Amino acid sequence: MLIGDLGEFGLIERLRELDVVRGIGDDCAVMTPPEGFDLVMTADALIEGVHFKHEWTDWGRLGWKAVAVNLSDIAAMAAAPAGFLITLGLRSDTDVEDVIEFYDGASGLLGLYRAPIVGGDIVSAPQTSISVTAFGYVERGKAITRSGALPGDDLWVTNTLGDASAGLKLLQAGHPRACPAFYSRHTRPVPWLPTSWLVAQTGIAHAMIDTSDGLAGDLGHICDESGVGAILDESALPMAPELGQLGDVMGWDPLDLALHGGEDYQLLIAVEQGHDRVMAAIQEEISPPTLTRIGRIVEGSGITMVRRDGSTVAVQPRAFQHF
Amino acid sequence: MLIGDLGEFGLIERLRELDVVRGIGDDCAVMTPPEGFDLVMTADALIEGVHFKHEWTDWGRLGWKAVAVNLSDIAAMAAAPAGFLITLGLRSDTDVEDVIEFYDGASGLLGLYRAPIVGGDIVSAPQTSISVTAFGYVERGKAITRSGALPGDDLWVTNTLGDASAGLKLLQAGHPRACPAFYSRHTRPVPWLPTSWLVAQTGIAHAMIDTSDGLAGDLGHICDESGVGAILDESALPMAPELGQLGDVMGWDPLDLALHGGEDYQLLIAVEQGHDRVMAAIQEEISPPTLTRIGRIVEGSGITMVRRDGSTVAVQPRAFQHF
Repeated sequence: MLIGDLGEFGLIERLRELDVVRGIGDDCAVMTPPEGFDLVMTADALIEGVHFKHEWTDWGRLGWKAVAVNLSDIAAMAAAPAGFLITLGLRSDTDVEDVIEFYDGASGLLGLYRAPIVGGDIVSAPQTSISVTAFGYVERGKAITRSGALPGDDLWVTNTLGDASAGLKLLQAGHPRACPAFYSRHTRPVPWLPTSWLVAQTGIAHAMIDTSDGLAGDLGHICDESGVGAILDESALPMAPELGQLGDVMGWDPLDLALHGGEDYQLLIAVEQGHDRVMAAIQEEISPPTLTRIGRIVEGSGITMVRRDGSTVAVQPRAFQHF
Repeated sequence: MLIGDLGEFGLIERLRELDVVRGIGDDCAVMTPPEGFDLVMTADALIEGVHFKHEWTDWGRLGWKAVAVNLSDIAAMAAAPAGFLITLGLRSDTDVEDVIEFYDGASGLLGLYRAPIVGGDIVSAPQTSISVTAFGYVERGKAITRSGALPGDDLWVTNTLGDASAGLKLLQAGHPRACPAFYSRHTRPVPWLPTSWLVAQTGIAHAMIDTSDGLAGDLGHICDESGVGAILDESALPMAPELGQLGDVMGWDPLDLALHGGEDYQLLIAVEQGHDRVMAAIQEEISPPTLTRIGRIVEGSGITMVRRDGSTVAVQPRAFQHF
């Protein structure tokens, strides 16, 4: 059945029956914040034709991704997610089952963290547009921001870099299945919440961000907000073997994707120097993802990369520009 | 300058300089909830071509309305607004000054309540789309919901009914200036927060909702959620004189607009019976808006209206259907 036939209130009633959205039936959702905690909030939008194409993904993955990118922002603050508001703009010829698959995909990921969908809005739109607000809690004053990095801090990153943009490039070239891992990293990113919590608990993390704009772009945000510079070690940058292997066929530069590829949703963390053993212990606890030391924070500004041959090169953030 | 030339980060930098959005520069906004209070949250979307046309309004009014409809939801819970996340989908040929005017319009209203814009997202989109999440606080357990109405309660409503849909009809007919008050009610609705707070403080309000779906639709929501019915008194329904005067020219039925016209954003309140003096005192305190007793809650279900001639008629909710 199409939602044009079922109608807005029919759709909302259906979602209510499925119990995927709490709090339907009032003007606002009501929650009781835990005492002694700060509230964190973030919002992100995904627009059909700009951020995704329906022929490249299914509605379940879309629901997963819509909440995953917000969970990743919550993780970047070392906070725990508490709830979500999802606003959907839908074409009237959208199949009701697709909408339910969307909520199933979102709930599947949110269920891991017991973070309910507590509200939102469903409206008619010329193309699918998804706007998600996530909120969570963090012990008062313990949120990790972008602005606390100090010269001497080690830079750590989770997992491998460039996979999501490799997945997008494969989709654009019509070979989505050439590397299922890359396809998944683009369409079904994983937020690293437990990693974030463990790193935060040690008290050695000074700054944190999730890499949505690419490593260089997001490291640039940390540098700007903290008033510092950074040095990256090219040989340390974690890359999947397939990134190089497929690169030859696809004509892409693996290093370029690792530095500038967007939507990786990895955690980039500035950690007090000399805590490799603590990070290794966290690694054992939460594997996956891997944790790799890729450089350090220095005085000054800008990002410098030490090449494999020992030479240095300035790295300019080159984030995806929307307009 | 067009935002296609300025770019996403240039636009964000510009908004940062203007200080209209707090908290730019981290993955999440961080706030400290007051102790002993519940958190309320709501989200609403406005899509170009569905909810508004640029030729019918200006960007300042659009910003005002986008936050007003959410403030109205916060008011309907008797909560105080604390902050907003605004997600904008914009065409690349949007003028930067228009975007700034949008934030000015939003901030102008939010400033009255010291509720900052704390975050959001700006993305490229084929048409303007606005998604707003509002949050606020209410003394723990004191939120007024739709589900507390009791048989015998009096039904009160703020201001006059049908004005916003009359404004829309005038716009559609090409006569927006035929009644400036109606035009304003459609393009620049006013949320009634102090009214809500005063009514809530008396402890006599059992249920409350804001009339976004029209009086009958929203009274229907209260009846459904509370498991009750309602009787309306036609002769008591507050209507602007112009609604009847223009109705003759425009060929609309004033009563139909009063009962079913959407986007009025008035407060509809089920109040313990027999408190006309308290409501009159509140009226004196907050004027405008007016407060009018329009009917009462009864056992059973459904809405019945007593006509001017004493006969009764069933009123079916006929809300705006999106799809």
